[in-house]
Amino acid sequence: MTSYFADISPVSYAPTDAPDADGLSFRHYDPSEVVGGKSMQDHLRFAVCYWHNFVGDGSDPFGGQTFDRPWFPADTMDLAKRKADDAFEMFRILGVPFWCFHDHDIRPEGASLRESHDRLNEMADYVGEKMENGGPKLLWGTANMFSNPRYMSGAATNPNPDVFAYCASTVKSCMDVTHRLGGENYVLWGGREGYETLLNTDLNREQQQAGRFLQMVVDYKHKIGFKGAILIEPKPQEPMKHQYDYDVATVYGFLKRFGLEDEVQVNVEQGHAILAGHSFEHELAMARTLGLFGSIDMNRNDYQSGWDTDQFPNNAPEAALAYYEVLKAGGFTKGGTNFDAKLRRQSLDPIDLIASHVGGMDVCARGFKAAHAMLADGALEGPRDARYASWNSADHLTTGKTLEDVAAFAEKHNLDPQPTSGRQEILENIVNRYV
Amino acid sequence: MTSYFADISPVSYAPTDAPDADGLSFRHYDPSEVVGGKSMQDHLRFAVCYWHNFVGDGSDPFGGQTFDRPWFPADTMDLAKRKADDAFEMFRILGVPFWCFHDHDIRPEGASLRESHDRLNEMADYVGEKMENGGPKLLWGTANMFSNPRYMSGAATNPNPDVFAYCASTVKSCMDVTHRLGGENYVLWGGREGYETLLNTDLNREQQQAGRFLQMVVDYKHKIGFKGAILIEPKPQEPMKHQYDYDVATVYGFLKRFGLEDEVQVNVEQGHAILAGHSFEHELAMARTLGLFGSIDMNRNDYQSGWDTDQFPNNAPEAALAYYEVLKAGGFTKGGTNFDAKLRRQSLDPIDLIASHVGGMDVCARGFKAAHAMLADGALEGPRDARYASWNSADHLTTGKTLEDVAAFAEKHNLDPQPTSGRQEILENIVNRYV
Amino acid sequence: MTSYFADISPVSYAPTDAPDADGLSFRHYDPSEVVGGKSMQDHLRFAVCYWHNFVGDGSDPFGGQTFDRPWFPADTMDLAKRKADDAFEMFRILGVPFWCFHDHDIRPEGASLRESHDRLNEMADYVGEKMENGGPKLLWGTANMFSNPRYMSGAATNPNPDVFAYCASTVKSCMDVTHRLGGENYVLWGGREGYETLLNTDLNREQQQAGRFLQMVVDYKHKIGFKGAILIEPKPQEPMKHQYDYDVATVYGFLKRFGLEDEVQVNVEQGHAILAGHSFEHELAMARTLGLFGSIDMNRNDYQSGWDTDQFPNNAPEAALAYYEVLKAGGFTKGGTNFDAKLRRQSLDPIDLIASHVGGMDVCARGFKAAHAMLADGALEGPRDARYASWNSADHLTTGKTLEDVAAFAEKHNLDPQPTSGRQEILENIVNRYV
Amino acid sequence: MTSYFADISPVSYAPTDAPDADGLSFRHYDPSEVVGGKSMQDHLRFAVCYWHNFVGDGSDPFGGQTFDRPWFPADTMDLAKRKADDAFEMFRILGVPFWCFHDHDIRPEGASLRESHDRLNEMADYVGEKMENGGPKLLWGTANMFSNPRYMSGAATNPNPDVFAYCASTVKSCMDVTHRLGGENYVLWGGREGYETLLNTDLNREQQQAGRFLQMVVDYKHKIGFKGAILIEPKPQEPMKHQYDYDVATVYGFLKRFGLEDEVQVNVEQGHAILAGHSFEHELAMARTLGLFGSIDMNRNDYQSGWDTDQFPNNAPEAALAYYEVLKAGGFTKGGTNFDAKLRRQSLDPIDLIASHVGGMDVCARGFKAAHAMLADGALEGPRDARYASWNSADHLTTGKTLEDVAAFAEKHNLDPQPTSGRQEILENIVNRYV
Ligand SMILES: [Co+2]
Ligand SMILES: [Co+2]
Ligand SMILES: [Co+2]
Ligand SMILES: [Co+2]
Ligand SMILES: [Co+2]
Ligand SMILES: [Co+2]
Ligand SMILES: [Co+2]
Ligand SMILES: [Co+2]
Repeated sequence: MTSYFADISPVSYAPTDAPDADGLSFRHYDPSEVVGGKSMQDHLRFAVCYWHNFVGDGSDPFGGQTFDRPWFPADTMDLAKRKADDAFEMFRILGVPFWCFHDHDIRPEGASLRESHDRLNEMADYVGEKMENGGPKLLWGTANMFSNPRYMSGAATNPNPDVFAYCASTVKSCMDVTHRLGGENYVLWGGREGYETLLNTDLNREQQQAGRFLQMVVDYKHKIGFKGAILIEPKPQEPMKHQYDYDVATVYGFLKRFGLEDEVQVNVEQGHAILAGHSFEHELAMARTLGLFGSIDMNRNDYQSGWDTDQFPNNAPEAALAYYEVLKAGGFTKGGTNFDAKLRRQSLDPIDLIASHVGGMDVCARGFKAAHAMLADGALEGPRDARYASWNSADHLTTGKTLEDVAAFAEKHNLDPQPTSGRQEILENIVNRYV
Repeated sequence: MTSYFADISPVSYAPTDAPDADGLSFRHYDPSEVVGGKSMQDHLRFAVCYWHNFVGDGSDPFGGQTFDRPWFPADTMDLAKRKADDAFEMFRILGVPFWCFHDHDIRPEGASLRESHDRLNEMADYVGEKMENGGPKLLWGTANMFSNPRYMSGAATNPNPDVFAYCASTVKSCMDVTHRLGGENYVLWGGREGYETLLNTDLNREQQQAGRFLQMVVDYKHKIGFKGAILIEPKPQEPMKHQYDYDVATVYGFLKRFGLEDEVQVNVEQGHAILAGHSFEHELAMARTLGLFGSIDMNRNDYQSGWDTDQFPNNAPEAALAYYEVLKAGGFTKGGTNFDAKLRRQSLDPIDLIASHVGGMDVCARGFKAAHAMLADGALEGPRDARYASWNSADHLTTGKTLEDVAAFAEKHNLDPQPTSGRQEILENIVNRYV
Repeated sequence: MTSYFADISPVSYAPTDAPDADGLSFRHYDPSEVVGGKSMQDHLRFAVCYWHNFVGDGSDPFGGQTFDRPWFPADTMDLAKRKADDAFEMFRILGVPFWCFHDHDIRPEGASLRESHDRLNEMADYVGEKMENGGPKLLWGTANMFSNPRYMSGAATNPNPDVFAYCASTVKSCMDVTHRLGGENYVLWGGREGYETLLNTDLNREQQQAGRFLQMVVDYKHKIGFKGAILIEPKPQEPMKHQYDYDVATVYGFLKRFGLEDEVQVNVEQGHAILAGHSFEHELAMARTLGLFGSIDMNRNDYQSGWDTDQFPNNAPEAALAYYEVLKAGGFTKGGTNFDAKLRRQSLDPIDLIASHVGGMDVCARGFKAAHAMLADGALEGPRDARYASWNSADHLTTGKTLEDVAAFAEKHNLDPQPTSGRQEILENIVNRYV
Repeated sequence: MTSYFADISPVSYAPTDAPDADGLSFRHYDPSEVVGGKSMQDHLRFAVCYWHNFVGDGSDPFGGQTFDRPWFPADTMDLAKRKADDAFEMFRILGVPFWCFHDHDIRPEGASLRESHDRLNEMADYVGEKMENGGPKLLWGTANMFSNPRYMSGAATNPNPDVFAYCASTVKSCMDVTHRLGGENYVLWGGREGYETLLNTDLNREQQQAGRFLQMVVDYKHKIGFKGAILIEPKPQEPMKHQYDYDVATVYGFLKRFGLEDEVQVNVEQGHAILAGHSFEHELAMARTLGLFGSIDMNRNDYQSGWDTDQFPNNAPEAALAYYEVLKAGGFTKGGTNFDAKLRRQSLDPIDLIASHVGGMDVCARGFKAAHAMLADGALEGPRDARYASWNSADHLTTGKTLEDVAAFAEKHNLDPQPTSGRQEILENIVNRYV
């Protein structure tokens, strides 16, 4: 067997300004470069995903498969193994420290639930060996509970209790495998947890089911001693018109409702932030504020398309603002930078798979370094602290004061507070000094 | 003084199908009609707002005032009283049982905080007398903490503590007046509680300020014995790019964070739901599910404009779906149907003000009656119950069961659940039998 | 063979207000009802499409096939015929006078271009016989030049001239078949005529190719004596990020550029109008204004989803405004009302296929009758004429006058024109008297 | 009188990487730097606009004036002159070669049409003297026909012919002044040329009026010997819900309809492109393709806000793609880079006005240089030419060939064209080598 990537050499750091014809070297990402006492590899914790890269076939709602991979249709264990061989070869070429998967990505679904579990375990052994032999570590595992028609009307929120049970078994199997492979997180994305029309939906019941399911997941994590984080990945719509995990703030409310806010964190995706009407940095700042920051799915969404375009990031100034929030949240601990990004339908070749990741990694590295410098210099934090400084001497308005107390102060002094400039454009100029 | 509406007679119910040239009679809204044991007036609890109707001047971001009202510029107490005279005349013509206001709507701002309070109190006396003499009751009062430049960078979330204090005094004065006038609710819309750019914003600090402020408001309510509901009105953006009360789910999380979920409810606006990427009925269903349903701001937002267009509702089928959720939440108790709706810039005449409300009220009445019949017939609830019926005998998957228990059940039976039709189009047809 | 629709009786007109459990009768559409001297069947000219109904399998970007049809996978001629049998049975049950198809819908693609043509011709014979034996007529035919990977980078606009040639052969074969089956129109929808990224696109060259191709199509139409209309169906994006036939106004400019504005008209789809930022009635009014009105694809697009949701219409007031524009354009001559609408992924059953069309047809009929009455009564045209009436005596500003002439008039009279109410809400109320 | 900008020194080029606290120096824009044989000043042709900078007061739909300028309310000729003094001082500090204005910006409206003209002429003399004494040149002039209520229902498209006449006089006066001041272009933005509701609008009549008006403008241009370009600025909506100059392709169709495509070009605004669902570079490429490229309004629109946010550009990679298209169109001849950008409501200070322009100019310079290098290197044009190369030897499919000829070729060879990679990600990487 010849590797699908046989013609492509491992990607290396080549810090020149000269153009190259294929975009196949890092200009900004040197894994071993130390920034602020930590290597870039440890800061960014890049992960490659299995789904878009090895399952995705280029189809879109108006046309079928365009990619031709040697492991397609991947419906036998042999082909699944062939797929794994090429995947780990790609991980090696890119030099990434992590990877991520759904059960559905690495094994063909079996004819029965039990056979699916058996296949998952067999494939876990197969990739586990590769991981031990120099392969990347597992950033996270997850269960695909959205592609099969059985999840058509929801997974844990399905009107049919048998689907709920099927999900329990599926998640358990994926948590077991993630734990066994040393995964640092376990992710839940509720792709079908939502509804198409209120006309046939019992919203409260479905949310109660989701809450109970998540509690069971958390309990099981503790039972098996899995030390990774449980992460929910918010998304507002698509595939369901209304999804229950709309955005970070919605997930926070959900967790509070079921008392799980200390047990579960979020995996924030750029594209999902955009679809929810937010910026990526907003969602990250919100996650930090609410104590939920876990990991990120790095990609970009077309601002004008309205669906999940999952493109590779290519705008360094935008990446800088995102990593600034990551750094303010303390940087990654268990989390990392997973590329939940897919090739365009017309990008057919092995080299497209490699070059897209190289470009994405480089944009992230470039953004990260700018973010780190901005934070180290206090370029934004200095002005920010100054803006709120009066609150440092405002005890007369805070501790133990009532509305009447505070109102009385305003009235006694007949206050007439005057606005001061927010200096937005100046701050934007300052950011442009770094990016 | 001649009333601005001198040429217009009180609007009456005229149940014919014949066209009329000005749209000035009710075809569907008969206040005294009893539906399900309650009069339409008591079901719908219509309110007219003071701001769009008596303050709005037709300006938009590209052009100034087009409306010419006899009380403009309303910058003296005399003009404010003239405005009140005409407002209550309009309330009489429409026959509405409620009205709503901001402090800013009914009194000219004073030269100082204290003078503003004095003027507010004087105007409260003036309108209070009208209310006692046959005028409508007060659905809710609120404070305008967004128009004046002092709120430019936030109200309770301002970087300047003096603005926080100013807000406390303002809200206190408005709660006092609302209480005095027998208001059934007090509303907070955080128009400037949000941010323009993260570059100059301390998100966590600002949200803490908002939480503390709301706690103070709730405490004060109890202290003065105000029995009305405290309502937050969610909105995702505009005027601020990112507002903290994005949608119902976000407000729920905020309330849970500060332990206020049993003290505060929501006033849901159709237009704000749309701007947040939801349907109105979604937001209403979510409010019900989360125990937050309070009141509604009825209007419509252009689905394609992206800003708050605040148009009068004119689509009866859409109104039916909204009132269906209101009815499922138990109908209005303290809340009601407030028209937070404004005339188009080109609708200059007194008759436009009247006709727009007549049309809106009629659309609501028509929608409400359809909703009531759908609910009474079980036209949707029957199929919905059937869809989830298997859960009624699913104790083996619920009480006290762990992920392992449930997974074991699935595996033991090697479950293979099959999808069944969601029947969306059939349900849509059924709705079309009623609307 | 048992028909897929064996359990379903032909749909009939049953004008009651009583609810029905499945929404399977017409309440508003009586094909033989005469309105304004023409039957409803002849006014509306309903057509059922082959693609969404008989090809669509319920898949979405996050999950595969949910529909299970007896003719799937329809990859043999036998299955294609089985599909045709059931399709014409469904046409009979619905009582529609027209149907529409792509080549791709009715025949499995052959192993070669020639085999594809042979299969198309064989299937044309097969369905032609059904049409002659009481089946519906053909509203239009078209070629699918977007699903196969060969069209990945464009059809007539492809960088590869062989694809251009392939398209010529394909369109020729589809025009021949459409002509032979007595089709009343031939449609071109340029699903892949557009671009993903300007970085690899020669915009001018691609548009030139499209223009030349269209000229060839028009010439061929005349050569073979096809009397039907050639229609372009505008759409702004999806599948391509930027499509060349963005909206009606864009298509007009394109036709003018290549001198084809008298040869080609438009097929306007509600959903595509919405995706382009317009209302459906805007696009229809624009088509009328520009002399391009041809036919409509009736459906509805979720206003908030951003992709082509192709749902069945279910809002009668919206349908009324659309048919009002159709009537103002003179009604349909060759065109008709084609349902380019698909079942939701969860609507699995044969009855869902029938009920969805019944509901859609009924909504159209209801809207049409309201539109017809509004037009007959002059309810909108009267006020509209009055609004522009001053232009009837404005010769001093029109014929042969220069900017200086007209300016001189304004200056001589020192004009100070005053605004008058646009009466939008009153007009909306008037519309609500009819719908 | 002390200048409003008294504390601010002329901005200079200071090519360091060191941060600065106020963002008040150019790091990339050196006006005299020669790139490709032309100075950066001559390439970019920067212009500052009068409206956002000297008329804008910080108000938004939810709150009033926040900016406090010494020339406010600018309702006397003295204040208008004070405003001009400060404006030209700002031009000097920035070192820009051009400025732009509406009549409304530079003179207070008179009590009558004639007085407005007199005031315009007086102010033209006043600013003309400043221009001669070292001030910048005039990139373009235009008439504000959207702010005054008389334009509420349209300017040239108004239902009232007197408004049409008023517009003729206004445009004539502005063209005269633009000509007198040596303006290089004259711009028409149809802010009120569109409609709010079709219910009261005669679309065809209004477009005919617009066409006739534009013809008159073009004739007048020739009559007075104005050598500048006449430019239309497309925008899809806001203030009117549907505007007639939706985007470049729509304007092209409009010009073709009235035979004006050789007389009129476009002024493309980034924000308006975004609002129309396009990228800025799409609109620029379309203008080039259609022979309409004239000038640009440089700014940025929030992708998620839906209204015209008119922010200063701050993303260099995006600017690079825009200038790449400008360069492909041959660069600016009469056109230039006008900042149609406004300060955020909270940016109150004189320094905010200066810093925002400095940041914007620097972003443009940085983007321009990257674009120039990409073009000079053939980094994109090389791969693009290769992608379409087969067309260079495709005479058998082009000259004089019919659909039948081309189809016959495909059939004879039984063509089966195979897709090749579009290399989008690789091209994006290449762009990232430059920006
Ligand atoms: Co993701
Ligand atoms: Co995504
Ligand atoms: Co409201
Ligand atoms: Co609103
Ligand atoms: Co269509
Ligand atoms: Co569609
Ligand atoms: Co502009
Ligand atoms: Co703009």
